[in-house]
Amino acid sequence: MFSKVLIANRGEIALRVARTCRELGIGVVAVYSTADRDSAVVRYADESVHIGPEAARDSYLSIPALIEAARRTGATAIHPGYGFLSEDPDFAEVCRENGIVHIGPPAEVIARLGDKPAARTLMAEVGLPMLPGSLGPLPTVAAAQETADEIGYPVIIKAAAGGGGRGMRIVHEADEFAAAYRETAAGAQLLFGDSRVYVERYLPISRHVEIQVLADQYGEVIALGERDCSVQRRHQKLIEESPAPGLPAEVVDRMQQVAVAGAKAAGYVGAGTFEFLLAPDGAFYFMEVNCRIQVEHPVTEMMTGVDLVAEQIRIAAGEPLTVRPPATRPPGAAIECRINAEDADRDFVPTPGVLTEFVPAGGPFVRVDTHGFPGYRVPAGYDSLLAKLIVWAPTRAEAVRRMDRALAEFRVEGPGVRTTSEFLRDVLRDPEFRSGTHSSDIVGRVLESRKEVLGVSAAAAER
Amino acid sequence: MFSKVLIANRGEIALRVARTCRELGIGVVAVYSTADRDSAVVRYADESVHIGPEAARDSYLSIPALIEAARRTGATAIHPGYGFLSEDPDFAEVCRENGIVHIGPPAEVIARLGDKPAARTLMAEVGLPMLPGSLGPLPTVAAAQETADEIGYPVIIKAAAGGGGRGMRIVHEADEFAAAYRETAAGAQLLFGDSRVYVERYLPISRHVEIQVLADQYGEVIALGERDCSVQRRHQKLIEESPAPGLPAEVVDRMQQVAVAGAKAAGYVGAGTFEFLLAPDGAFYFMEVNCRIQVEHPVTEMMTGVDLVAEQIRIAAGEPLTVRPPATRPPGAAIECRINAEDADRDFVPTPGVLTEFVPAGGPFVRVDTHGFPGYRVPAGYDSLLAKLIVWAPTRAEAVRRMDRALAEFRVEGPGVRTTSEFLRDVLRDPEFRSGTHSSDIVGRVLESRKEVLGVSAAAAER
Repeated sequence: MFSKVLIANRGEIALRVARTCRELGIGVVAVYSTADRDSAVVRYADESVHIGPEAARDSYLSIPALIEAARRTGATAIHPGYGFLSEDPDFAEVCRENGIVHIGPPAEVIARLGDKPAARTLMAEVGLPMLPGSLGPLPTVAAAQETADEIGYPVIIKAAAGGGGRGMRIVHEADEFAAAYRETAAGAQLLFGDSRVYVERYLPISRHVEIQVLADQYGEVIALGERDCSVQRRHQKLIEESPAPGLPAEVVDRMQQVAVAGAKAAGYVGAGTFEFLLAPDGAFYFMEVNCRIQVEHPVTEMMTGVDLVAEQIRIAAGEPLTVRPPATRPPGAAIECRINAEDADRDFVPTPGVLTEFVPAGGPFVRVDTHGFPGYRVPAGYDSLLAKLIVWAPTRAEAVRRMDRALAEFRVEGPGVRTTSEFLRDVLRDPEFRSGTHSSDIVGRVLESRKEVLGVSAAAAER
Repeated sequence: MFSKVLIANRGEIALRVARTCRELGIGVVAVYSTADRDSAVVRYADESVHIGPEAARDSYLSIPALIEAARRTGATAIHPGYGFLSEDPDFAEVCRENGIVHIGPPAEVIARLGDKPAARTLMAEVGLPMLPGSLGPLPTVAAAQETADEIGYPVIIKAAAGGGGRGMRIVHEADEFAAAYRETAAGAQLLFGDSRVYVERYLPISRHVEIQVLADQYGEVIALGERDCSVQRRHQKLIEESPAPGLPAEVVDRMQQVAVAGAKAAGYVGAGTFEFLLAPDGAFYFMEVNCRIQVEHPVTEMMTGVDLVAEQIRIAAGEPLTVRPPATRPPGAAIECRINAEDADRDFVPTPGVLTEFVPAGGPFVRVDTHGFPGYRVPAGYDSLLAKLIVWAPTRAEAVRRMDRALAEFRVEGPGVRTTSEFLRDVLRDPEFRSGTHSSDIVGRVLESRKEVLGVSAAAAER
């Protein structure tokens, strides 16, 4: 086992990884930008290294700074967390060249799965179900338009180098296609330095269901159940849960089987997630593989009792998998809510500031993952995720009530700071969410009804 | 179901009950003494009623004040928590007379089980194993001494009205007996207004294992596993866990069977605990029944997924039990540590004061039950329990490491305030605790070795 791990991240995930390192008896090296100098993980770590200014490109995205920090502290492995460099094959490669273990899949696997056309081609070969569309990139407008016309509108144009909801555009009519193609390609060039795009059918109403996999270095791969992540705003997940409400066990089993097959075909190593779109008719389609720990991994931990970060570390250290998938579906239901420092009613604008009050939720069957504390200054320059609240209960209905209770008691105050808690509670109260029949349009609908209520209140206040 | 429940308690248990009420859609009425005016449950409740001054006898122990608070707020049920009036049959009776549901066993059951000789006689009849001793009270020194001489020393003299570790005295030699008898009887008269005592064999080395039961109003009784509470100081529990380390499943099964039989014989209703002494030879003996929710109930909740307070409320509302005992032993291990505002190295003297810093532990598989928050003033007049930290892990060894991690990260600071966290971590590091072979003498041993270390440091500082 490693004696010292460097955590190349910040915020709640850095602290979460540090906790598991501590439990495994591994020394913790935190890195921090100037803005994060007083952060929770810096307080927590055995050693901390300043790696640059607030701007992520010169700190959390700076491969040389991270490698130097590892070298200086004698860390023999790096956990990349999620976001930042977690799915950058170059980072994995540079780690390897420097004799540092990258806690994640090998560089080649990240590169192949990060290239969406390559990943789609591979997964289609293994038999994963695909939405009608092009497997490979479509280098010309004409070829792309032909494909789009063939599969029928609406279609979605996606960047080959995209993923995680970035670099995509929906096209509803044939005559909008050419312009959208050019915009997506140009945007992809700007975002990823890679203008290649592909096209697939767009499902206006769908659900997002994903499968957690673990794979060791010896070819053993297991699936640890599904997470439903259909509550999204602009492809950013807000609420995740397991089991996926109403999804028959046979469908979950099939998803798990194809995910395991896909991971084996890709030579996957570590913790990974296979994302699927679930159509209203019950069919599901492969979307992408995430080559990292997901924000929503605690949902699976609550359901299975497995510490996924510990498994990532053990796998990276060369241990064979000892975790077995549950023989039967685990009992109960788990839900995660992401509490962001944002104002939901002003287009989710981030609300940085100092937390004058911070009292996390607690009590039975509640888990809190947060880097917040009283006096913490939420910086402006990063992801606005402030806390993840995860609950478990014997039934989904009880889990929803438990989450509502936990959200209500979580106190976060600070001048100018707003959180998404109230908005999340509105989603929990939505009748479709309550019945588990919601789709990816739920956030828009809840926002609309909040606007109406707010509008009514404003009008009443004016009278 | 009740529309409004009054919580006749304070501290973490009041908040814990309030959380479940919220989840069940029940209105929460908090009561508070002057010292608790700004407490967490007061902030949390829908309504709060001031019931008296800091002195518990005029507030949390004042039956008229509590009944009046329920009447004024329209609460139709009272949850007594633990301690205070939770095992007072008069309180249960007065509730009933006032048409208020007492969330606990009927007054008669509390009275009978609270009278230790009566309880012992009943349980012996049902076949529960008893330590050699007198079932009933021994009204004269001569009769008591005769019993003691018969069973052999050491013996323990216990107040008939005692329980929870109060009102007892160990006698090692026959010639100490008479004085000890008179002191215990006089103490019992002072403490409980009842001088009756009984005698049983004392086991200098033993373990404390208890069985959680749930019983509905229709005679259905189930057991939900065991808790080992051997880490005690002066009969006050400090660490509790499940499963009981090293205890064979057959022994747990037998304990569960006799506990269920005992609960049925007593006409028990609600959540209750059967306490047993476990001798080094593996034999176990009935000690007492606790007619309330226990401080350590979260250990069972972590193992079983059952919200015991919700079950108490459902049972009191007349619902039949729907919880089933697990078909097989639940996986993993759960541990609870009680973080008290006390100085372990100064004989556990309470350290009241204002909390200037309060950052609970969090992350995977950690539950925190606390009424603490930054700025909270720990009052001097009550129980010094500040927080309960509960963890679960797939194995006991992992649970111990997780607890150590969680204790280390729990930050409590305030002028003059100390907590038992460091002491608890020393217990976790004890080789006997680690191997699960410890007995009730562990706390004394750990305190001794702390003294040695502190002595060495003090000596070093003087040089």
